[in-house]
Amino acid sequence: MSWHDESLMARKGVAGGKPGARHAITIEDQGTFHYVYGPYVEPVLKVAPGAVVSVQTHDAFEGRIKSESDSPAALLNFPYLNPQTGPIFVEGAEKGDCLAVRILSIRPRGEQPIGTTCLMEEFGGLVGTGHTAMLNKPLPEKVKKVRLDENGVYWSDKVTLPYEPFIGTIGTSPEIEAISALQPDYYGGNMDLPDVGPGAIIYLPVNAAGALLYLGDCHAIQGDGELCGVAMEMPATVEIQIDLIKGHTIAWPRLETEEVIMTIGSARPLEDAARIAYRELTRWIDQESGMGEDEAYMLLTMAGKARLGNMVDPKYTVGTSIKKAYVKT
Amino acid sequence: MSWHDESLMARKGVAGGKPGARHAITIEDQGTFHYVYGPYVEPVLKVAPGAVVSVQTHDAFEGRIKSESDSPAALLNFPYLNPQTGPIFVEGAEKGDCLAVRILSIRPRGEQPIGTTCLMEEFGGLVGTGHTAMLNKPLPEKVKKVRLDENGVYWSDKVTLPYEPFIGTIGTSPEIEAISALQPDYYGGNMDLPDVGPGAIIYLPVNAAGALLYLGDCHAIQGDGELCGVAMEMPATVEIQIDLIKGHTIAWPRLETEEVIMTIGSARPLEDAARIAYRELTRWIDQESGMGEDEAYMLLTMAGKARLGNMVDPKYTVGTSIKKAYVKT
Amino acid sequence: MSWHDESLMARKGVAGGKPGARHAITIEDQGTFHYVYGPYVEPVLKVAPGAVVSVQTHDAFEGRIKSESDSPAALLNFPYLNPQTGPIFVEGAEKGDCLAVRILSIRPRGEQPIGTTCLMEEFGGLVGTGHTAMLNKPLPEKVKKVRLDENGVYWSDKVTLPYEPFIGTIGTSPEIEAISALQPDYYGGNMDLPDVGPGAIIYLPVNAAGALLYLGDCHAIQGDGELCGVAMEMPATVEIQIDLIKGHTIAWPRLETEEVIMTIGSARPLEDAARIAYRELTRWIDQESGMGEDEAYMLLTMAGKARLGNMVDPKYTVGTSIKKAYVKT
Amino acid sequence: MSWHDESLMARKGVAGGKPGARHAITIEDQGTFHYVYGPYVEPVLKVAPGAVVSVQTHDAFEGRIKSESDSPAALLNFPYLNPQTGPIFVEGAEKGDCLAVRILSIRPRGEQPIGTTCLMEEFGGLVGTGHTAMLNKPLPEKVKKVRLDENGVYWSDKVTLPYEPFIGTIGTSPEIEAISALQPDYYGGNMDLPDVGPGAIIYLPVNAAGALLYLGDCHAIQGDGELCGVAMEMPATVEIQIDLIKGHTIAWPRLETEEVIMTIGSARPLEDAARIAYRELTRWIDQESGMGEDEAYMLLTMAGKARLGNMVDPKYTVGTSIKKAYVKT
Repeated sequence: MSWHDESLMARKGVAGGKPGARHAITIEDQGTFHYVYGPYVEPVLKVAPGAVVSVQTHDAFEGRIKSESDSPAALLNFPYLNPQTGPIFVEGAEKGDCLAVRILSIRPRGEQPIGTTCLMEEFGGLVGTGHTAMLNKPLPEKVKKVRLDENGVYWSDKVTLPYEPFIGTIGTSPEIEAISALQPDYYGGNMDLPDVGPGAIIYLPVNAAGALLYLGDCHAIQGDGELCGVAMEMPATVEIQIDLIKGHTIAWPRLETEEVIMTIGSARPLEDAARIAYRELTRWIDQESGMGEDEAYMLLTMAGKARLGNMVDPKYTVGTSIKKAYVKT
Repeated sequence: MSWHDESLMARKGVAGGKPGARHAITIEDQGTFHYVYGPYVEPVLKVAPGAVVSVQTHDAFEGRIKSESDSPAALLNFPYLNPQTGPIFVEGAEKGDCLAVRILSIRPRGEQPIGTTCLMEEFGGLVGTGHTAMLNKPLPEKVKKVRLDENGVYWSDKVTLPYEPFIGTIGTSPEIEAISALQPDYYGGNMDLPDVGPGAIIYLPVNAAGALLYLGDCHAIQGDGELCGVAMEMPATVEIQIDLIKGHTIAWPRLETEEVIMTIGSARPLEDAARIAYRELTRWIDQESGMGEDEAYMLLTMAGKARLGNMVDPKYTVGTSIKKAYVKT
Repeated sequence: MSWHDESLMARKGVAGGKPGARHAITIEDQGTFHYVYGPYVEPVLKVAPGAVVSVQTHDAFEGRIKSESDSPAALLNFPYLNPQTGPIFVEGAEKGDCLAVRILSIRPRGEQPIGTTCLMEEFGGLVGTGHTAMLNKPLPEKVKKVRLDENGVYWSDKVTLPYEPFIGTIGTSPEIEAISALQPDYYGGNMDLPDVGPGAIIYLPVNAAGALLYLGDCHAIQGDGELCGVAMEMPATVEIQIDLIKGHTIAWPRLETEEVIMTIGSARPLEDAARIAYRELTRWIDQESGMGEDEAYMLLTMAGKARLGNMVDPKYTVGTSIKKAYVKT
Repeated sequence: MSWHDESLMARKGVAGGKPGARHAITIEDQGTFHYVYGPYVEPVLKVAPGAVVSVQTHDAFEGRIKSESDSPAALLNFPYLNPQTGPIFVEGAEKGDCLAVRILSIRPRGEQPIGTTCLMEEFGGLVGTGHTAMLNKPLPEKVKKVRLDENGVYWSDKVTLPYEPFIGTIGTSPEIEAISALQPDYYGGNMDLPDVGPGAIIYLPVNAAGALLYLGDCHAIQGDGELCGVAMEMPATVEIQIDLIKGHTIAWPRLETEEVIMTIGSARPLEDAARIAYRELTRWIDQESGMGEDEAYMLLTMAGKARLGNMVDPKYTVGTSIKKAYVKT
């Protein structure tokens, strides 16, 4: 028996965590990508809970950066960045429900070199930006195209980095807002959190009818913080299994793996992202175990883990987690 | 001759800063209010540059808080907060232009007590909130209804505060985003900056065709920071004069009065709001005077003023200004 | 009758706010300056409450920057910056008391050009620094020497700025810490708050026997935030009157003028400085008036003012105030 | 051959990373603990590079919290908190050098229950504090005494947590400052970073003659962030080996294990701690490999790891690291 059979998704999902009908969204099916998370567009696909969907995503630059001599500033056109596939309408999903998305696989797609990273002007964790506004001159742009496959990311002649793929941007639609796909927030979005990878189940709040699931921005590998602002970006084929938990209201995204439960907060300054995540986790532990918020707070002081997602997007992201073994009541 | 005749609005506006046709938007004209700043709705009015528009706005609670025994938590329904009148479509406005809005008057509207303020759970500058997440218990709710007119705000038997009205929320539409009217950002929005009052001209970036001007959330008086999160809220009638500056691209809102020029930044943490505003002002001074960014930076070190708008909204707002007399070249 | 006769200093001071014996500390008396606020040095002067002391202070660079061709990086030697005169031992002062310092006058001292400002590498509000660490290259250094007197600061051929002097750095010793004179904190220190000028009374917590008052770093004028990090620095002669309030424990510096009461907080991020100041003011108002913290919190929402001191030092400083007229019970 | 033989300590240390004379500091030797990191006290021990020192430390409460019915507020007396053993004077150490401290072992000391944690008023990551000042009422105090040994931390009947000890507070003296042992900063101090455990080598900047090494505040286990502010505090016996690297100037603490190199930053807001650490690591990688800062910045974007130390102390701490295998030139 897999741990998935005891996951929240399996225990409470409308489809019982079991795979249902198979679907696919190709780049051609998608046609036009979306650059905001919002309710003002038509779904590209409607599915029932249990659906297994193969989704093609583009890279964060929509393929515009083709060579190391390209200029990101010349080729990119804000706000048309970070193209998202979707939205997927999930039948029966209503405000107050929870969408469960199990990530089955993430495979790179397209011609080598598949991977792209770059330094962009006024973007990144160690440079002045539009928000942390400085008078210093920007760093020069720099593009790096990198070969990669499911065995590794071939960074240089000497160094091969592991292939540790995840979905950089995934979430549901806000109720009436339409927010840039560059931003993470309470509905998910551009969290750039490496834990959102194969094997994990992510839980997202449903704010609008049908949930309206968007995803894109897959990364072949990324360090904590996505420091220069651009991870190992790649076009990908993502396979997900969707379930729906009725009446299970969560305020921020959550995640589950075999070993841990995790909550995800996005905010500035960074400590507020950590506070959101840890408060959600305190409450989740208390709800699961009945140990009381104060006891959960002390337990997290001993055994909580914090993962830095991004420290470069309009909001920064932190995932906080604890081993399931420590939450036993 | 008024200083308005030498304002940026008069010097560069399509209508030369001169009043044109008169229009009005009543509550009845408006019908349904809007709760996001975005391009996904029909304009309530189309005007040419020069238009003088009398706009009725509702209070931030859409009138739901009627007595001091009311419970904000019970009556308010997020995200349907901070109702906005508009949008007003300005003919000829295109992305990259600048909208100039001169505020002619702000008068309270409705039956006494016109003014409302309150303490709300998990909202305010000195309490834990959804973003600065705390485990402490919230403060108790408290509502205060206050009589006010153009002569004063009758706070208590002993204290009358001055009537110093301004528009709490005003801005243009983003290009493809639709952002909560609770948030201030690069297009204006919920800045809650007391300088946005009668006599001032506010300059807003145009991001979408027609500019799509929204406004609402007038305050009879407010301290720096809007500390508890709720100023002296009132329904109002606002008279504005609109002009359009073609090809004048600004990144963030600006403001002009007889004595000063001001730039406005919104971000978290608060120093980033101040950095945005001061960098914009450094650049504005340099452009006006040709003195160089380094000289402007030093001048602001001596003579810049910073006004704290809000420190309670999803982004905090700071306006930074300098006397026009000090920028003479 | 002056407002001083009704000040907290007059009402509660050991000397009743009345001037006592006169003293002076010249640069020669001082001998070696101090670069930390701490209890590990001998007082330069011992006085009784009521003492009026004429204090000579040096500029923040200890006079090392003599011409516009000087290099601050070459001449300055961290941590030997921001030289402080003192400490002054106040007889009878014990931990838990409050020191009241009325600022009688601040006069520039030395040969013209008396004023110095400059751009320093990795220091300032709009550049990457040692704390907000960036990879961008620093701005070039730049020194500006400026003539000034009590009638004005002669910034350029075209612009004369007003002479608005204040004490940039003033405070008492911590109990066991010795903290850099570059930093502001709960005991005062490098607040760089323009309100600390002639006419004002500043109240400081006493943490060590004798209070151990230090001061220095006078500015001829400064904008809100001290944006580039270096105001119009000048050597000065400061005249102060010292009193002592026994058993009056305050957590952070406070200030009083004819019209307002002010509290001062220093912290990062900037909102925490504002929170400290506003919470102290909420409590002060409640204590003075008995109106309750919730009512004081709402009153400050309407009528509180926030003054940005520095946004460049190791902690940022905000002073929050309210008119005395609004606190009447 | 151990990795220690190829460590920076072994390659550049005066003692070549080899153990020298053995010393001990017991609680009795120490006599009075210290509560600031500063140069104003006599060393408790003088050693030559290579010295192996067995150091007894007290818990952060100096043993005052003896039972679960104790009140921390009643028993603790700020600023006399977090008692430090030391300072140890290292012969030959001068400003600009680097002190290398290899942690050999950390063993709990004293009678069961050895471990203490608690909730304190106005202290912790999810409550209002003296710096993030709130009007909300504090959480109730709560003390938990916990049995622990080198095999485990016996949290409850159902949950045993692993014994993962580290030194919460360790550092050298500032040059002229004396800073509270509650604070982490450029010289080390109260970093509360779990990586500072057995097997690691920590590198500390030398700011004062003899380096003046202090340590204390050992933890039996701690989660990322030390969320409630109090880890599993314990009295301990720490065995360290000290070496000295002449003329090797570092701005912030660094750390080395078999697999990674790490840099440590402490600041508020939390992103500034991460920026400091990541900038130091960018520069370290560049210096080791000659790959250029831009290439190091991109490499860290792919493969950097961030560890949250504390998010509760006067400055927050982040350690950033990369695998040595990825820095090969």
